[in-house]
Amino acid sequence: MPRFFRDEGVLSGIVHITGKDAEHIRVLRLRPGETFTICDGKGKDYICRLLNKKEHGFEAEVIDSAPSRGEPTIHCTVYTAFPKGDKAETIIQKSVEQGAARIVFFLSLRCVSRPDRKDVSKKLERWQRISEEAAKQSERGKIPEVHVLESFETAIAEASKAEMPLFFYEGDTDYSIKQALSSKSRYATVSVVTGPEGGFEPDEVMKAREHGMLISGMGKRILRCETAPLCALAAVMFHTDNL
Amino acid sequence: MPRFFRDEGVLSGIVHITGKDAEHIRVLRLRPGETFTICDGKGKDYICRLLNKKEHGFEAEVIDSAPSRGEPTIHCTVYTAFPKGDKAETIIQKSVEQGAARIVFFLSLRCVSRPDRKDVSKKLERWQRISEEAAKQSERGKIPEVHVLESFETAIAEASKAEMPLFFYEGDTDYSIKQALSSKSRYATVSVVTGPEGGFEPDEVMKAREHGMLISGMGKRILRCETAPLCALAAVMFHTDNL
Repeated sequence: MPRFFRDEGVLSGIVHITGKDAEHIRVLRLRPGETFTICDGKGKDYICRLLNKKEHGFEAEVIDSAPSRGEPTIHCTVYTAFPKGDKAETIIQKSVEQGAARIVFFLSLRCVSRPDRKDVSKKLERWQRISEEAAKQSERGKIPEVHVLESFETAIAEASKAEMPLFFYEGDTDYSIKQALSSKSRYATVSVVTGPEGGFEPDEVMKAREHGMLISGMGKRILRCETAPLCALAAVMFHTDNL
Repeated sequence: MPRFFRDEGVLSGIVHITGKDAEHIRVLRLRPGETFTICDGKGKDYICRLLNKKEHGFEAEVIDSAPSRGEPTIHCTVYTAFPKGDKAETIIQKSVEQGAARIVFFLSLRCVSRPDRKDVSKKLERWQRISEEAAKQSERGKIPEVHVLESFETAIAEASKAEMPLFFYEGDTDYSIKQALSSKSRYATVSVVTGPEGGFEPDEVMKAREHGMLISGMGKRILRCETAPLCALAAVMFHTDNL
């Protein structure tokens, strides 16, 4: 079912669809009588039936409301060192599909891609749109926010506050993601931290450990920097019964 | 460590590197004394030290051999309905990284992409190269084969022979991938079957069920056709302690 995000408080009765959502309805060629979902982006879905075309958009009728089904029971933030090229976009799209709550990019020592502030603000706008598109398509109840943190230290300070703070390092495969996820019986927040193309520096791993992050591996295969966060996220969702 | 696949039986003493592997050594600017791995593609690694440049390549010395660490303990085949565009390449690359044993594409009713035989044989060559590159990069011990099956029926007949035959259908989320994977205590072979952009037809799901496949869902979010097989594979590897 087509899905739009609009935060306008509680919806009921007749609603007016204008702007880019109206444009989307036109592109999808929805006809009167067909249904679509308006999600408030806070976890609530309103099922609507399209009524008439109006001068600046469409009229629709709210016929039902329910909590969004697509939100996982766990709040997982994906922290990834800036990757090269358009890999950030892949990471955002697939993380949103797989249920991430937030996606954060940060600079680490071996990052090949080192965008400046101007680059970043332009990219962030585009990245947030990708998140919204993926949230619509995958039927999420919230649009995950995309953030950029300027240093490894800031990222670790934030990531380590999660109840299950995971830091992936290919040099350390003795402690697996399964062992880490099973080391506590209950947690509501998870961080998944993964490195850039060249991996983390040992010094960065030490800092993460000092901050209380659980340093773990992800099997004996070397995963690309854009594969690692998605594989870890799938494991987190599987382990917490969200898959 | 740089990694090449060469199947020439047991290696020992001095070996000669020619052709594309020699070219690769030149591109990587490996110097005498530096080490690299020759894998026989059957699960055995030979650690080699580069000696001298020769007229048509390089000489190297085998200094150690060991079973390849990158092979999972489980034989998982990924069956995916032909996706549009270059998504097949993404699926191959990331499935190999995540430990798939084979990748099989097949035609299903709602496939938008319906390549003809000539297209397929050209693509297969390219796809097999992508698999080899991903196997090198991720340090696999074998190069997963990429196959194409012409019908849904053939794919299901083959996939259903696995000890854990998983068929993913977004219309049926009552039985989760976790329930399916936990329904047997031991299995050595797994199939993961996922659909095209528009999903499977109910009739196809019925056929899969008749063949004994376990029809299961993957959470409450709608995954893109290229995300679903990778998410399922991560779950299989996690569940079987290969992550």
